[in-house]
Amino acid sequence: MPATTVVPHLQTALTGPLLELESHLLAQNQEIEAWLRKQFKQTPAPFYASVDLRNAGYKLAPVDTNLFPAGFNNLHPEIRSLAVHAAQSTITQICPIADGVLIIPENHTRNTFYLENLFSLKTIIETAGYEVQIGSLMEGLDAPMIIELPSGNTLTLKPLVRKDNQVGVDDFFPCAVLLNNDLSGGRPEILENIEQTLLPPLDLGWASRYKTHHFQHYSEVTEAFAKIVKIDPWLITPTSVQCGPVNFKERSGLEDLAETVNKVLADTQQYYDTHNIGCKPFAIVKSDSGTYGMAIMSVQSSEDILSLNRKQRNKMASVKEGLHVEQMLVQEGVYTYEEIDGAVAEPVVYMIGNQVVGSFYRVHTGKEATDNLNSPGMHFQPLSYAEPGIMPDETQQPDSAPNRFYAYGVIARLALLAAAREIADAKGDLPPLEIQ
Amino acid sequence: MPATTVVPHLQTALTGPLLELESHLLAQNQEIEAWLRKQFKQTPAPFYASVDLRNAGYKLAPVDTNLFPAGFNNLHPEIRSLAVHAAQSTITQICPIADGVLIIPENHTRNTFYLENLFSLKTIIETAGYEVQIGSLMEGLDAPMIIELPSGNTLTLKPLVRKDNQVGVDDFFPCAVLLNNDLSGGRPEILENIEQTLLPPLDLGWASRYKTHHFQHYSEVTEAFAKIVKIDPWLITPTSVQCGPVNFKERSGLEDLAETVNKVLADTQQYYDTHNIGCKPFAIVKSDSGTYGMAIMSVQSSEDILSLNRKQRNKMASVKEGLHVEQMLVQEGVYTYEEIDGAVAEPVVYMIGNQVVGSFYRVHTGKEATDNLNSPGMHFQPLSYAEPGIMPDETQQPDSAPNRFYAYGVIARLALLAAAREIADAKGDLPPLEIQ
Repeated sequence: MPATTVVPHLQTALTGPLLELESHLLAQNQEIEAWLRKQFKQTPAPFYASVDLRNAGYKLAPVDTNLFPAGFNNLHPEIRSLAVHAAQSTITQICPIADGVLIIPENHTRNTFYLENLFSLKTIIETAGYEVQIGSLMEGLDAPMIIELPSGNTLTLKPLVRKDNQVGVDDFFPCAVLLNNDLSGGRPEILENIEQTLLPPLDLGWASRYKTHHFQHYSEVTEAFAKIVKIDPWLITPTSVQCGPVNFKERSGLEDLAETVNKVLADTQQYYDTHNIGCKPFAIVKSDSGTYGMAIMSVQSSEDILSLNRKQRNKMASVKEGLHVEQMLVQEGVYTYEEIDGAVAEPVVYMIGNQVVGSFYRVHTGKEATDNLNSPGMHFQPLSYAEPGIMPDETQQPDSAPNRFYAYGVIARLALLAAAREIADAKGDLPPLEIQ
Repeated sequence: MPATTVVPHLQTALTGPLLELESHLLAQNQEIEAWLRKQFKQTPAPFYASVDLRNAGYKLAPVDTNLFPAGFNNLHPEIRSLAVHAAQSTITQICPIADGVLIIPENHTRNTFYLENLFSLKTIIETAGYEVQIGSLMEGLDAPMIIELPSGNTLTLKPLVRKDNQVGVDDFFPCAVLLNNDLSGGRPEILENIEQTLLPPLDLGWASRYKTHHFQHYSEVTEAFAKIVKIDPWLITPTSVQCGPVNFKERSGLEDLAETVNKVLADTQQYYDTHNIGCKPFAIVKSDSGTYGMAIMSVQSSEDILSLNRKQRNKMASVKEGLHVEQMLVQEGVYTYEEIDGAVAEPVVYMIGNQVVGSFYRVHTGKEATDNLNSPGMHFQPLSYAEPGIMPDETQQPDSAPNRFYAYGVIARLALLAAAREIADAKGDLPPLEIQ
C-alpha cells in the first residue's frame, strides 16, 4: 500500500473553540503527557482499545470506546512497527515471563474483515516475539479450522480447552490470554476463575459493562483534565444519560426515553445558544451494552422515538447474539464535519497499552454528518506515519495534520483512561484523579 | 523532508552466507525476540546507543557501539514517534516518578551538527512529556548561553551546578540525568557519587572504558546467539584483539602492534580461504578508548604500521580532548559493500532502551570499501518508516529492504546487549548468558 498523505479537510474552517483547544493541547504537550503518564501509572491502561471520535469543529469528543478492537488490518502497514513496540512493552509489563499469547476471537468465521483483523493482530504480537495461537469459543469446533483469507494469508482456529485452572489449545497454555471477543453472548463458563492473566478482565465484556459507566468515568476524567489545560470540559465531553428499562418490542419505557431525548436536546440547544453555535442539536440513542453499530439511531426530537414503526422498533430490539436490550444510552449527537472525497468521515484511534499506535478514518458515502457511520457500506482510510498522533509540530498551524492528530491522540487517551478507571472500579479499587 | 525510499544496493549480489543469515533471522524472528527480551530483562539495556554496522555481503558486523549517541537529528522526522514512545517507556522503567530529564552534553559549542542532535534529543524527550534542561560542563560558563541553530531553533545551555548530592541547573534537579558526553576528558568531579540516576553510569565513559571489553562481551553474546539461530558466529563477529601500550610519538610498541595486525590478517585470510571468499583481508587499528573517528587507520599489512611517517604517527597519537593513547584495538576489517549513488555507505542503527528507533546511512563520496567512513566529508541519509528495522516481511525476499533492516536491527541489538553486559560487569554483577 502506498503512503497516504490524504488528510480529510474539515468542512468548517477551524476558527472557533476547537482551534483554541488544539492550541491549548499543543502548548501544554509536556504537562498533558506527564499527567497521562501518572494517571496510567496508578490505573494501568487495558491491553488495547480503539476509540471512535467525532470532530464537529466546535467540539471534539469520543462516542465509542472499544475494549476488544477489531480493525488492526486497517492500520497503515508502514506504522505497524509502533504497534509491535507497544505490544512488546505492554506484554512485558503485564506478564514479564510470557513466551506466548493466546487470542480468543469472536465467532465470526465468515466475516473476512474480522478475520483479516485477527491475522494482523496475531502478526503484530508474533513480530513482537511471542508465539500466538488462536483458541476459539465456537460451539461444535472440535478440530483445527484452517481459513484462507482474501489477503492470501492463512489463519488457524483451534478449539479452546480448559485444563485445571488454565485455558489453551493443544499443549499451549500461556500466561497471557487476550480477549478479542466482546462477550456480548455472556460470560463463557470456560473463562471463569482461570489462573492466567485475562486481558481485559471478564467484567469488561458487554455482558457486564454499561456504556454509561464508561462515559461517567470519561466525564470525571475530562473534568480533571480540563483543569490542567484550562478549557471548558464540554468541548471534549458528550452529554450521556442512561435511560431504561426500555422494551422496544413491547413499547414499554418509550415515553421515558422520549423525555430523556428532549432533555439532552434542550441542554445541547442551551449550550449552542450561549456559544453562538448555529447547528441543530441531535441525539444518539443506543443500547447501553451493545456494540457493532446495532440498536442505534440518530434522533432530532422526541417524536422520532414515539413514532417508531414496528420494523424500526424490531431493529432497535435486536443486537448481536441476541443480547437483551433493556438499558439505553441517550447521548448528545456530535456532528462530524470531516470529509474524504465528499463523504463523511470520523477518525478511529488505536492504542496498545497507553500508546497511540495509529488511526484511520471510517468513511461512509451514504451517510450524513449526524449519522452513525459504523454501519454497512462504510469503508476505511488508513493513515500513514505522517499522522500517528504522537508528534505534534509546533512550527505548524494548530489545525495542521500532525497537530490535529495529536489532539485526537490526547482525547482518545482520555477515553482510554476512563476505561482504565472502569477496570479499577470493577475491581473495587478506584483511586482519586487528583495527583500531586 | 520527503519520505525517502532509497535503499542502497549491495555491490555484491546477496547469494552467499549473508543471504542465508538473513533467512535464518527471518525464520526465527520469534525465538530471537523472545531471547533478546529475556536477556534485556536480566541485563537492562543502556538508556540509548547507536551502532555502526558494516555489511560485506558475506559478513555483517558492528564496528562501533556508541553509548553517548549524537546524530538524533539524522533520524528521519517521520519516524521520531518511535523514539518518543521508546523514551517514554524507558524513562518510566528507570525513574517511574520522573517529571524532568537533565541532559549533560559535549562541550562543542561550535559544532552545529552536534547541537542540532542535542536539540532533536531534547525535543524527543520533551514530546514524551518531560521537562528537559541542558546542564553544561563547559569551563567558564557562568550564565545561560543561547545558541541559534541553522534549523532556526534555539538551544539554551546552562551551567551545571551541584547542590549537596545532586546536580542540576537553576532549581531543576530531576531524578534522571542523561549523559550525552562520552567523558573522553575524564570523570568530572561534579558527577561523582550523585544521588540521581546517571544514564549511562560514569564507568561507561571513555575515561574508563575499553572497546576490547565491549567486543569481548559482544563475542560472548554472539557465541550464545549463534547457538539459538544455528549459524557460524564468525558471520556476525569481527575479530578484535587488544594491543599495547603503544606510543606512536615515541615509536614504542609498534613492533607488537605490527605483529598483532599480522595475526588478525592471517586469521582472516584463513577463514576467507576455507570459505572461498575472494577478498583481500585488511585490519582497522584504532585507539581502544577513543572515539570520533580519530586515531584510526585501515591497514593491509604490518608494513603499513612500521612505515608510518611522523605526520601519520602524530595523527594516531591525537585523540579528542587529548586523551592519552596507550591501548590499541586491532580489529578485522569488514568491507562495506553498500553504496548510495556510487558512494560507499554504512548503516548506523539507533536504539532507545531495547528498541530500535531508526537508522541512517553514513555516506562518504571520498572513501573506499575498506575505509573508516566516520571522517570529515561524510554525510547522512535518513531512512523512512519503511525501514526502521522492526517489521520483517516474510512475503518478501530475505534481502528486501524490511528484511535486510530487520537483520541490521538484530545485530545492532546484539551489540546493545554486549553494552548492557559491560554495564553489569562494571557493577560486578554479570549473569550467565544461558537462559532457561
